[in-house]
This record gives sequence, C-alpha cells and structure tokens, in this order.
Amino acid sequence: MTTSHTSDENTNPAAANGARGGAGTETDEAVRAELARLRDSIDNIDAAVVHMLAERFKCTQQVGHLKANHHLPPADPAREARQIARLRELAESAKLDPAFAEKLLNFIIAEVIRHHETIAKSA
Amino acid sequence: MTTSHTSDENTNPAAANGARGGAGTETDEAVRAELARLRDSIDNIDAAVVHMLAERFKCTQQVGHLKANHHLPPADPAREARQIARLRELAESAKLDPAFAEKLLNFIIAEVIRHHETIAKSA
Repeated sequence: MTTSHTSDENTNPAAANGARGGAGTETDEAVRAELARLRDSIDNIDAAVVHMLAERFKCTQQVGHLKANHHLPPADPAREARQIARLRELAESAKLDPAFAEKLLNFIIAEVIRHHETIAKSA
Repeated sequence: MTTSHTSDENTNPAAANGARGGAGTETDEAVRAELARLRDSIDNIDAAVVHMLAERFKCTQQVGHLKANHHLPPADPAREARQIARLRELAESAKLDPAFAEKLLNFIIAEVIRHHETIAKSA
C-alpha cells in the first residue's frame, strides 16, 4: 500500500467517489456503459440495413437491365406512389415517422434511377 | 437469348417491341412476371428496412434522453467518423457503393440530431 495523507481515497475508491457527492465518476461510468450498449445496438442495426440495401440494389440492378432491354422508362411514378403509400403505412405501424420513411425512400429511389439511367445508356 | 416468333424480333428487338405496341405477347408477359417478382422482393426488403430503422430510432431516442439528462452535446463528430468508416467497409464487402452508404448514414444521422435537439430543448 502506498503512503498517503488520506488513506480513505486509496483503500476505497468507490466510497471516495461517493463522498465527492455525485459530481460523478460512478454516474459517468454508468452513463458511458449505457451509451456504449445503445451504440452497439445501433451498429448492429446499421450493418443489417447495409446488407438489406445491398440485396435491394441487386434487385433494382436486375430491374434496370430488364427495363433497358425492353425499352421501359427508368422511372415509374405510379409504382413509386404505391411504394410510398405502403411504406408510410408500415412506418406508422412501426412507430417510425412516416415523413422520414417517405424522404428515405425518395433518397433511395433517386439513387436507383441514376443506376437505371446508367444501365440504359450503356445498353 | 429469348425465344421469338419472327427473325425481325431477333435481329431488331427495339423495332419488334414498337410493332407489338406492348399488348400482351408472351415476352411482355414474361417481362411483367419477372418485374413483379423483383418488385415483391424489393417490397419485402423495404418493409425489413423500415422495421430496422424503427428499432434504430428507439435506440437513438434513448441516446438522446441520456445525452440531454447529462448535458452531452447532441452531435458527436468522432463517433460519426468511426460509424462512417465502418459502414463504408461493410458496404464494400457487401458490394454496395460505399459513397451511397455514407450519404445514407449522413441522411439518417441528420434526422437523429434533429431528434436529439428537440429532446434537449424539452429537457
């Protein structure tokens, strides 16, 4: 044991923390642990979403080739309107902001249409 | 190569398509069926993504409350840089455009930060 002026702090760090009155390393530790737990879940979900979207683009690439080979237009507004209405409903039942779900789908569709146009040009 | 009734269709599919006018031939039927099959998969994937994101926002709402209660800033640039680097790697291994994955994550994070700011204001 090292020599010190206030042996309490050396022999019992937890009690010493408590004595500091919650200014808090113990609380900080708990907050950090909870934040790390939530971030691990977020990272797992993000990995899942990336892999789902990789699979989605495999499908839309096939759609792109099909459309290019049969001279169908890259965009399909009627289909997109149906997709948006359906996703808004799904979002609502999953307690996700429907407006966010719609913005996200539009973001993904814009990327898909860019892909379709590239495929059509090179067809 | 697809089966077709006339040599014209084999040598000049564009003209053949034009001549058919899109009215219910065998090829059109096959194309429609293939498009429907791919779109069903896309719809399934979209439903999965919506539910994953609903779960993600449940996590980030908890992070938002944790941050607001402990007076931590809504945004965390160091954490975001790590997330982006990781997602770009995951995207690459899943053959998804890493630039698209990064844009998508930024899009989602922007929404999350808006939520955190709302929580912080009401805390």
